[in-house]
Amino acid sequence: MKTSILAIGTELLGTSRLDTNSLKITSLLEQYGIGINRKSVVGDSLDEIIRELRFAASGHDLLILTGGLGPTEDDLTKESVARAFQLELEESSEILRSIEERFARRGLRMSPLNARQAQIFAGHETLINNRGTAPGFHLTVTFEGSERHIWVFPGVPYELEGMLENDFGPWIRSQRGEVSRVRRILKIIGMPESTVDEQLGPFYKKHGIPFTILASHGEVQIHLQADGDRAESGRTIAAMEAELRETFGERMFGVDDDSIEEVVGRLLTNAGATLSTAESCTGGLLASRLTDVAGSSRYFVGGAVAYSAQLKLSITGVDPANIAAHGEVSEQVARDMASGVRRRFNTTYGVGITGIAGPGGGSDEKPVGTVHISVASESEVKHRKALFSGSRELIKYHSTQAALDMLRLFVLRGR
Amino acid sequence: MKTSILAIGTELLGTSRLDTNSLKITSLLEQYGIGINRKSVVGDSLDEIIRELRFAASGHDLLILTGGLGPTEDDLTKESVARAFQLELEESSEILRSIEERFARRGLRMSPLNARQAQIFAGHETLINNRGTAPGFHLTVTFEGSERHIWVFPGVPYELEGMLENDFGPWIRSQRGEVSRVRRILKIIGMPESTVDEQLGPFYKKHGIPFTILASHGEVQIHLQADGDRAESGRTIAAMEAELRETFGERMFGVDDDSIEEVVGRLLTNAGATLSTAESCTGGLLASRLTDVAGSSRYFVGGAVAYSAQLKLSITGVDPANIAAHGEVSEQVARDMASGVRRRFNTTYGVGITGIAGPGGGSDEKPVGTVHISVASESEVKHRKALFSGSRELIKYHSTQAALDMLRLFVLRGR
Repeated sequence: MKTSILAIGTELLGTSRLDTNSLKITSLLEQYGIGINRKSVVGDSLDEIIRELRFAASGHDLLILTGGLGPTEDDLTKESVARAFQLELEESSEILRSIEERFARRGLRMSPLNARQAQIFAGHETLINNRGTAPGFHLTVTFEGSERHIWVFPGVPYELEGMLENDFGPWIRSQRGEVSRVRRILKIIGMPESTVDEQLGPFYKKHGIPFTILASHGEVQIHLQADGDRAESGRTIAAMEAELRETFGERMFGVDDDSIEEVVGRLLTNAGATLSTAESCTGGLLASRLTDVAGSSRYFVGGAVAYSAQLKLSITGVDPANIAAHGEVSEQVARDMASGVRRRFNTTYGVGITGIAGPGGGSDEKPVGTVHISVASESEVKHRKALFSGSRELIKYHSTQAALDMLRLFVLRGR
Repeated sequence: MKTSILAIGTELLGTSRLDTNSLKITSLLEQYGIGINRKSVVGDSLDEIIRELRFAASGHDLLILTGGLGPTEDDLTKESVARAFQLELEESSEILRSIEERFARRGLRMSPLNARQAQIFAGHETLINNRGTAPGFHLTVTFEGSERHIWVFPGVPYELEGMLENDFGPWIRSQRGEVSRVRRILKIIGMPESTVDEQLGPFYKKHGIPFTILASHGEVQIHLQADGDRAESGRTIAAMEAELRETFGERMFGVDDDSIEEVVGRLLTNAGATLSTAESCTGGLLASRLTDVAGSSRYFVGGAVAYSAQLKLSITGVDPANIAAHGEVSEQVARDMASGVRRRFNTTYGVGITGIAGPGGGSDEKPVGTVHISVASESEVKHRKALFSGSRELIKYHSTQAALDMLRLFVLRGR
């Protein structure tokens, strides 16, 4: 079933609003194994809506429209649909009465404009709106020789949700039967998207199930999905997951909704370990991400944001000789920060980060984006030097991402 | 100039991501009085992208594409554009070299897949990507007898922004002349949207210029704009701004791109003052926001994230008697944290935050969302108790927003 969503309304083409209704519709359809092929947004222009409708109808079996059902003159969805597919609109006395009653119940007089909302498509299904005045519609039309289902919903999210639940949901279930899609997201860290893709080469055709790669926020996600018999799909996905775990090994840090900070938190909790942090260039972002996790007070004791050299000495216990000899952004200082904060805050592990987030402060020897990260336990201190690019905020983010990953492996290996 | 935006990528058709790049493009175009006529999203399918491109080109003069320029096999934008408009792709040895160099600088080996990114459109303008590997393009093609401008950008926001600034912005300026629209955003903090709206009542018709209200991230923005003669528009906006400054007084913290953390930074810089922070429930987020500002090392010395009671005593110097008598989440502890960190970190001002971010840890007396904030100078310590609602992350954010506003007023009044 090829599907297209169309959101109608000039306000959705400005700088401050996005069509978020499509996410609700997509979510419902995904439960029945139906993906969206395209979606579009068009303003309140009769010609442009008609053009868009005919384009969508020529390639898709299911058209889902939201918005443009209000009472004002720039609400043009019904007229556009009628013209695009040669349908007749007629006033429904029943709907008109229900709108009048709705106003009366609130002690309001119905504006004559609202009578436009009583116009329905002759011979097609009208959807009752329990949450507002605009009815919705389910039209079955023949276009270019094929049957098209066109669903027309109000743009007000609360009203739309009511119709998805009462009308569209039951219909789609009647078309598709019970839900049968199995999904799994595998999450990789510390490997570029192109390398993940290369590693996946041998798997692309092997299991006959589609998967997509998505890179964002310093991680790469592999989305697996299988339709059909539920038990069989589950087995296929599990087999594939097992093989990919083998392939990516420690680079795969979690699945589905896992975040790296949650995974680190679980490892620390399981080990009965505690953590403290000493940050310079990341300015507290690492501590903030760690404490985004509910229950993080079980393992996260606290952190120091040592922006000045003075504080690096006094709070995290960096050796002044190391700052003098190597500068504040150096391997030695990162190591001192990690082991110093660990000792002073009396925790199992300590993390130290020092670097240059930019845009100023770089040099040939230490360009903007140079970051030193260390993780310390009682018996060992590991170090990594990295060079990140991008804005100040991105450099901060990627530095914390790398630190969380180092810490994860450090704890995982029982250091 | 009729304009259509097309975002390419199957991930943008799922339930978790929206095309937000179009907002940045829209914002830039609006400065030159160009509205968007439609926008659409299509998945990684050659046929569907081609169909979408030809549909958009048949009605619009300006097509703006984002995404699908990555190195993997499901990155199909260039091939689709070439087929839709009969253009030739060729490998650019120059671009290939620059990609190889980019990898080499990071000590990485270039994957053979990345060579796909060196394919360019013969005879058309290639846009250099300073922030990633995928070049962009500006194509001028004739379609259905009319000239169409097609701009092709990477989907990575940071890379897109670079090209909007370096390439697309200057081009649109050359097409449209200097901006004739005058805009001004006034930013209000610590006042609900509905109260701002009420206060604006008398102004709605007064100056004959449109304005809109937008609430987000703990601030309310009033967007003013005037078209037409530049000098006259400027005077109208300035007069309106002056009246609104009078109305909102200290609640108006900035204009246009100002963020509250930048405004606080400017005030501290002008006062030659320094700052330290002691955070509990916000877990470092306040320090992280302060250090998102370039040059913040001039006034921000450092911070303590004192998650455990023990650290509140040892690092920020809270009086143990206050924890014993009032608990960790209390006015007394917030005051001790602010003045303690100020003294120990030797700064002009200190901020202390302690509270319950949830979802656990609340009680009848101190429900989730209870937050105590203090700001200290040598001569005074101010305190505020707040109750925020929402998720853990929202409570953290609103707590830092309130702390930044308290600090702003404290410094502004020369305390």
